[in-house]
Amino acid sequence: MRLRHKPWASDELKKRDHIVIQNPKEMAGNWKQTFGDYDEIHVEVGTGKGKFLAGMGELHPNILYIGVEKYQSVLYTAMERVEEAGLNNVKLLSQDVADLADFFAPGEVNRFYINFTDPWPKSRHEKRRLTYKSFLALYENLLVKQGEIHFKTDNQGLFEYSLHSFSLYGMILNQVSLNLHESGIEGNVMTEYEEKFSKKQMRIYRCEAKFRN
Amino acid sequence: MRLRHKPWASDELKKRDHIVIQNPKEMAGNWKQTFGDYDEIHVEVGTGKGKFLAGMGELHPNILYIGVEKYQSVLYTAMERVEEAGLNNVKLLSQDVADLADFFAPGEVNRFYINFTDPWPKSRHEKRRLTYKSFLALYENLLVKQGEIHFKTDNQGLFEYSLHSFSLYGMILNQVSLNLHESGIEGNVMTEYEEKFSKKQMRIYRCEAKFRN
Repeated sequence: MRLRHKPWASDELKKRDHIVIQNPKEMAGNWKQTFGDYDEIHVEVGTGKGKFLAGMGELHPNILYIGVEKYQSVLYTAMERVEEAGLNNVKLLSQDVADLADFFAPGEVNRFYINFTDPWPKSRHEKRRLTYKSFLALYENLLVKQGEIHFKTDNQGLFEYSLHSFSLYGMILNQVSLNLHESGIEGNVMTEYEEKFSKKQMRIYRCEAKFRN
Repeated sequence: MRLRHKPWASDELKKRDHIVIQNPKEMAGNWKQTFGDYDEIHVEVGTGKGKFLAGMGELHPNILYIGVEKYQSVLYTAMERVEEAGLNNVKLLSQDVADLADFFAPGEVNRFYINFTDPWPKSRHEKRRLTYKSFLALYENLLVKQGEIHFKTDNQGLFEYSLHSFSLYGMILNQVSLNLHESGIEGNVMTEYEEKFSKKQMRIYRCEAKFRN
């Protein structure tokens, strides 16, 4: 992702505290209570510029979407998008995914999305990949029983690795697609990346990984 | 696979009983005892014209390779190949994979290979796919503990399905490759199909699926 330094982003994000949640630790266990009676809570980790989350928010008004992104300069774009679309059911966290357990209670999340995350291709960076086992344990703890991760990437190496990591963790792989845009899937909401890569005829890989317990 | 009717194949196969085993039920539990002190027994299900098995047999003289193929007209080609190469460590069974449990004792097999098997793309034929759960149970029973299936195919749909099926069975996916011939893998022995498809720049998918117990 292109990161432009936006020194004013931090202040602007704080001003939009109805979208960018400023006290996320106090929200753990209280998301639905605070924001309304939504059917489910879906969290996107590494939400980037928010195209996917805003698109999903528009399609599914009964679901509360929460995007987590540590880079403020891209989160600013996500915030603008949510603001312009007037989406009450999309919230953003200017936070690191590693701290996720501080912001949600165990079992509070119905689904995680991981879209076009950094592949960290070097072996010594394996632990930073958002599909590494320590992250899977983090998601599992916050998810409902037999919760799911919906995962998309254009990166072949990351997808291969993630299939290994999911299966090693005992997860069940559903809806595996090794060429998403040729598979005739319906209702797919594209991310910024996905639009760019699919225009170049690059394959998009996708699967739904379900925890066994 | 192109199947040419060879009415004489049946008789010819019977004549080569040092390669095409005629009494496979009596062999269950006795393979190593009968054919020599091999380190391991590897079985290929749906061995076709035997190019892979003969290639592996040449590379690994310490392993006993057994190919199972129900179509006699293609098995005839496999038999010729093994005979011409003078391979003592490659044996063939003119049998249906569904009957595998009659020919091996539990725990007798060290590894299964499934290469370019019929994809049976229609949902109603799911049970015929060699990676369907009933076949996985069959392989698991005959394999050593934590035994492995090494699986290759050019068929995207079959690979997607098999990842689902392996994971649902609780297997661990290792060495996943979504474009085998671009992955720089060493020691890959190609099947007839694989050579043909890779010349056409088609992707070959591969993984090693390991039973958990």
